[in-house]
Formats: sequence, structure tokens, C-alpha cells
Amino acid sequence: MSTVLQAVEVAGVIAFACSGFIEARQKKMDAVGVFTVAFITAFGGGTLRDLLLDRRPLFWVEHQQYPILIFVMALIAIPFSRHLQHAVAEKAINYADALGLGLFSVTGASLAADAQMPMFVCVMMGVITGIFGGVLRDIICNEIPLVFKRGQLYATCSFAGCWTYLLMEKMQASESAALLAGIAVCFSLRALALRFHWRLPG
Amino acid sequence: MSTVLQAVEVAGVIAFACSGFIEARQKKMDAVGVFTVAFITAFGGGTLRDLLLDRRPLFWVEHQQYPILIFVMALIAIPFSRHLQHAVAEKAINYADALGLGLFSVTGASLAADAQMPMFVCVMMGVITGIFGGVLRDIICNEIPLVFKRGQLYATCSFAGCWTYLLMEKMQASESAALLAGIAVCFSLRALALRFHWRLPG
Amino acid sequence: MSTVLQAVEVAGVIAFACSGFIEARQKKMDAVGVFTVAFITAFGGGTLRDLLLDRRPLFWVEHQQYPILIFVMALIAIPFSRHLQHAVAEKAINYADALGLGLFSVTGASLAADAQMPMFVCVMMGVITGIFGGVLRDIICNEIPLVFKRGQLYATCSFAGCWTYLLMEKMQASESAALLAGIAVCFSLRALALRFHWRLPG
Repeated sequence: MSTVLQAVEVAGVIAFACSGFIEARQKKMDAVGVFTVAFITAFGGGTLRDLLLDRRPLFWVEHQQYPILIFVMALIAIPFSRHLQHAVAEKAINYADALGLGLFSVTGASLAADAQMPMFVCVMMGVITGIFGGVLRDIICNEIPLVFKRGQLYATCSFAGCWTYLLMEKMQASESAALLAGIAVCFSLRALALRFHWRLPG
Repeated sequence: MSTVLQAVEVAGVIAFACSGFIEARQKKMDAVGVFTVAFITAFGGGTLRDLLLDRRPLFWVEHQQYPILIFVMALIAIPFSRHLQHAVAEKAINYADALGLGLFSVTGASLAADAQMPMFVCVMMGVITGIFGGVLRDIICNEIPLVFKRGQLYATCSFAGCWTYLLMEKMQASESAALLAGIAVCFSLRALALRFHWRLPG
Repeated sequence: MSTVLQAVEVAGVIAFACSGFIEARQKKMDAVGVFTVAFITAFGGGTLRDLLLDRRPLFWVEHQQYPILIFVMALIAIPFSRHLQHAVAEKAINYADALGLGLFSVTGASLAADAQMPMFVCVMMGVITGIFGGVLRDIICNEIPLVFKRGQLYATCSFAGCWTYLLMEKMQASESAALLAGIAVCFSLRALALRFHWRLPG
């Protein structure tokens, strides 16, 4: 079980970092910008949650292998970045991103529940963890955050996953069952939205 | 007294949220964006102050009715938003906003004084509480913050209200008299600036 | 020694504040905007570091003379700002900025090391302290951060200075020798990059 979660975590971190990497290159940033934006996309949401909940040490401080991994990825990938966008299938990134969204959201909600936050606040902390890396990426790249604009189901998937997790916890389900169910709901909803181009009304 | 302050608080939160709501709709954001921007406009300033002062729980965590209120407002208001701007008188929002600015600024300064901050820092914390919701709203909407640009008296009113409060406290006035005086100074100055189009020199 | 460091600190704070001041005026901000942007440019990096490390009181809270200094500078300088850019030699600002970059970066890394952070994280905290004031300045001014874009050696100098400091500490050098060496490496590299227009590849 914990091996599965760890694999999901690595996939999610890499997918989030890749989306930061691609946007930073589109903005013609240099190596420093590419690393920073990739890093903030991957860890910005969790860092904001930890600041709001007053949790320390931060996730990426405890696991310094992740910043180092992104640093090395940035160094390696920059010379090849013109070819990279073709090489890495956009679809693969989208699905890895959906996994990461599920995992980060549900663990965010879980940490808030551990800190005795009221229910709606737990959901908000989960969604913040899932989406604010991308929000900060877009703010640094001087764009209106995509997640607020496109009408796609994205934050909504995170929202649904967090409620699933919290309601299962409330009904005395085991922690790991609740985690898996929350991730599965978020991931499936996101995958369906990608496949069938579901959109928010608006 | 505390009932009066609570009514002012509700009016201020709603006015701040409305200004976020309106700007997000102008930027063609979807429901997720509208809720987030309205929420951050209402609570961003206080949250930043609490992070700087290391205060927990955050205001909106203690009072989860406020995020829920904004969530419900966003859901209800979006289908009607084309008509909304006409329905809600801009003037009413401006004056409710001025009340909110006064209350949030003065309570921000008061919390900083409780935390033994030096005087000038207390004023800064008050002004941050009052204006940074709007600053964050504009950053997310990819605009230069209005409060830094328009030359209108806005932050200046907050500044004057905070000094009024702190000086009255220094002169041993009762807490509630100092609070009311600070709010009154901020609100009146803002109302006069709105009425007579007062502007900063420069 | 501590007098030298303090002189460097004052020079750095003023240089950082000036760069905020100049960018805010270019964006036609009013007095409130000019003060806020100058303040955030000078103290944003250190404040973000302190939030991440959970250190209190913040630097500018402990030394309220600095915010007051910037406040007075903003009041005095605004009426003269059309002439200011010619009066203050850009070169002088660049070199004072390089000193500030060195000092802020190395002290940031040092504080992170005191807090038992792992080595790579200490370097990141140092670089964040050095460069994030400018990053926040550019975000508020609605620009893509210059430090991520121009390909100039800037963050890289901070990076090199932090490693110098940390490796000397590791080799049991005295704290003050390590501090001076780190600042010197960062400053010299930056001065050479300015003089010979060195750029990052990519």
C-alpha cells in the first residue's frame, strides 16, 4: 500500500514539475526560472497548506531528494527542451497530473483533518494543496491561472475526491480505504473530463 | 457594541467578496475562479497578517460559516451575474467596503499591538489587513493592484484609522472607544474621498 | 566586523528599496504603491524565508527603523522622482545591490543551517532570501520576474555564495570567515558578470 502511494507521489511530483517546466520554457525563461517554476508548481500547493496549518518541517525540506531531483531534471532537460514537448506525450502528463492531483488533494484534506479543522475547511485545504502549485506557476508566468479560467473540471475533481475521503473517514472506514477511494474518485472524474471534454456550466 | 461590530464585519466581508466576484467575472473566470477570488479578496489580508504574526487558528478557519457563505453566494450569483452589476448599486458596495476597510484595518492593528509589535509595525499590519485582500485579488486577475495605482485615498484612510486607534489606546482610552474612533476616522475619510474625488498628490 | 556587516546591510536594503522604487514609478504607481513595492523588494525575500523556517520576530519587525526609513525615503523621493533616475548612478545601485544580494543570501543560508535544514535546502533558503524580494516586486508590477528571464548571472551568484559559506562552515572555518567568503564570492561573481556581460547558456 505505502509503496503504491509512493509511486503515485513520484509520478505526481514529476507531472506537476513538467507542467511548470513547459510553461516556463514557453515564456523563454532561463535555467533559474525553469527550475524555480517547476519547483513551485510541484510544491507550492503543499507549502501554502503547511503555512496555513502551521506545519513544519515542510514536505520538500523533509525530502530534499525531491528538490534535488527537479534541479537535476532542469539541468538535463533544458538543452533538449525544444524536442522535449514532442517526446513526452501530453496525454501521459495529463494522466500523471490527474494522479498527483488526487493524491495531493486527499493527503491535504487528511492533514487538515488531523489538525482538527472543521469539515469545509478540510476540503478547502485539500483543494488548495492540489491546485495552488498550478496557480502560483501561472501567477509567476504572468497569466491568469488556467484552473480559474478554462471551465474544465479540475478543481472540481479535487473537491469531489476530498469529500469522498472525509465522508468515508466519518463512516469509520479505514484510513487507507478512504485515501484510495478519494484518489480514485478524483482521478476517474478527471480522466472522464479529459476524455469527454466535460466542462463547468458558466 | 459587539453586535454592532459583528454587523460591520458581515457587511465588510460581503462587500470585499463582491468586489472579488465582480473582477473575476470581468476576467471571464469560471465558478472555481469566482469563488477563489471572492474568498481571497475577503480573507487574504487577514490571512497574510496572521501568517506574519504567527497567529492560529486563522479567522476563516475559526468561522467556517464565512467560506461557506461565499461558496453559496458564488453558486447562486453566477447564473445571474450579467444582471448583478446593475442590481447591486455600486455606491452601496463602496460604502460597505469602506466600513470593512475600517474594521479590518483597526482590528489588524489591535492584534499586532496585542502581540507587542512596535508602533509603526502595528500600523503596517493594520493596513496590510485592510488592503492586501484587494492586492491579492488584482495579482490573481493579472492586473497591477488598483490600490497602488489610482491615486485615490484608500490605503491612506486605513493608515489614518490605525493611527487613531493606536494613539487612543496609548492615551488609555477604552478598547471599544478606540476601535470605534479608528473605524469612524477611516470610514469618514474614505466616504469624503469618494464624495469629493480626493486624490493623492503625485 | 559586525560594523562592516551592518554597513553592508544598510547599503543592501537601500539598493533593493531603490530598485523597487524605480520600477513602481515606471508603472506610474502612487505614493502607497511606491512605498509598498520598495518595502517588499527590500524585505520580501527575508520574510518569505522566515515564514518557511517559522522564525519570528521577522527582521523588519525587530528593526522597525528600516520600514520607517523606506517610508521617509518614499515621501521625500516621490516629488523628485523624475530627476532621481539621472541623479543616482545606475552603476552604484548595481554594485550596492550585489553587496545586498551576497549578504542576504549568505545570512539566509546561515539561518537555515542553524535550523538544522539539510544542505541543499539551506542553499535554497539562501537564494530565496536573496532573490525573492525582486521576484515579488515584479509580480506586483505585473511583469515576469526579471531574475528568471534575462539569462544574467544573478541567482547563480547567490547560489555560489551560499555553497561557499556552507562548505567553509563544514570545514570548521570560523563563522565570520565563512560569512565574508560567501559574500565575497557572490559579490565578485556578480561584479564580473556585470562588467563582462556574462550570461547563462540556454
